[in-house]
Amino acid sequence: MLSKAQISLVTSLQHKKFRKQHGLFLVEGIKSVLEFTSSNYHIHSVFSTAEALAKMPNLPQKIKCVEVSNAEFHKISTLTNPQGILALIHLPEEDAFDWNTIRNEHSLLLDDIQDPGNLGTIIRTAEWFGIRQLICSQGTVDAYNPKVVQATMGSLARIKIAYTNLPDFIAHAKLPTYGAVLDGRSIYTTAFGNAGLIIMGNEGNGISHALLERVEHPVTIPRVGNAESLNVAVATTIFCSELTRQSLARK
Amino acid sequence: MLSKAQISLVTSLQHKKFRKQHGLFLVEGIKSVLEFTSSNYHIHSVFSTAEALAKMPNLPQKIKCVEVSNAEFHKISTLTNPQGILALIHLPEEDAFDWNTIRNEHSLLLDDIQDPGNLGTIIRTAEWFGIRQLICSQGTVDAYNPKVVQATMGSLARIKIAYTNLPDFIAHAKLPTYGAVLDGRSIYTTAFGNAGLIIMGNEGNGISHALLERVEHPVTIPRVGNAESLNVAVATTIFCSELTRQSLARK
Repeated sequence: MLSKAQISLVTSLQHKKFRKQHGLFLVEGIKSVLEFTSSNYHIHSVFSTAEALAKMPNLPQKIKCVEVSNAEFHKISTLTNPQGILALIHLPEEDAFDWNTIRNEHSLLLDDIQDPGNLGTIIRTAEWFGIRQLICSQGTVDAYNPKVVQATMGSLARIKIAYTNLPDFIAHAKLPTYGAVLDGRSIYTTAFGNAGLIIMGNEGNGISHALLERVEHPVTIPRVGNAESLNVAVATTIFCSELTRQSLARK
Repeated sequence: MLSKAQISLVTSLQHKKFRKQHGLFLVEGIKSVLEFTSSNYHIHSVFSTAEALAKMPNLPQKIKCVEVSNAEFHKISTLTNPQGILALIHLPEEDAFDWNTIRNEHSLLLDDIQDPGNLGTIIRTAEWFGIRQLICSQGTVDAYNPKVVQATMGSLARIKIAYTNLPDFIAHAKLPTYGAVLDGRSIYTTAFGNAGLIIMGNEGNGISHALLERVEHPVTIPRVGNAESLNVAVATTIFCSELTRQSLARK
């Protein structure tokens, strides 16, 4: 049985303000919840229908689980086709910077990405290609927005994310910087080396002026046809794929 | 002034059945409408507010344009934030097979892609990379669905699309076939040559069994991290990018 206070808590987490206030975010769906329960995140509680719970024999015993009816679950779900399970998870206390990763691998820097679906796809795709650190400008959509979490398909549980002032971060990191622009060197003939910062710009405006000044290597995805632009998640995909191709070719 | 019959015609075109019946589909937004008016498609009519029309000095004179109020436009728009212009366009009379392109370039074959956003992104991205022919299974979502048209950002105007039985098409085409699978050869060490058919499978099930038998070259996108899968538009992006990289490297 769900109390009014519980319904109000869960639904409030659709808004960033209340996620910050409660220090919690929500994750829905069988696969996604399992990805988080087997990660380093701390689970606050799980709300589940009996039906969904029966499909999750792997759910750790110690997790506090509230059983709810299908009708109750519909009141707290953010999805059109709910799977009957939703977890409240503690937000990480601090932004996650793994300097060992940043110094030795490629990290993605996102400059004011606005669309939750784009950020979610970027996280899922980056994680497929082994990117372990994402650094977002403070104007980038919140990674704990339920639409972002949903689109990451569980990959959010395995990637480190920090929000910070990007020009300051770059000045501090002292690593090679590669920026996605329209008039740079072809991505296919750019040598990305073993470590560096890959900068992707906003959907409409690209990389901001302040950040563009910090880009040492302007890089372009060659256009063969006549399309005016590429979606930013698509462009990020091409960078991640090319990093992987070059890295595998070196081995 | 919009008649009831006009409103009913435009809104009916959100459904495939009525698109077929009327031989029309709809395109919204300033950029997208301009892409189609300067293409080989035949324009039936344009509905526009005075405000939107003022932004379109390039609209060919001969096009029949119905001026409508903002309130009227909201009744026919499919978008949350309408731009005040919508065109009805004649569906191509036949599926477009350009055999000169198919024999000499790479074409994309889509096996039961379900999501309109995915198909739209695939069309936009493929066209960026110079793919000129898309061949879809009969179970693939209709490319003239307004959500697909919107997501292509005008690229639909420049790419040839046909719907057909894919195993029969492959048997007839007699070209090398490359299929996106989970246990094939790395895409980065697969030589795609100058022409061939690139086969992408359904979002949940991948390439169907009947089609898999026709795949001569099973190809895989190497996974470095732990993500379980890639979105099909993301996977298609990686194939288009790698085709382009290899083609540019040969020049």
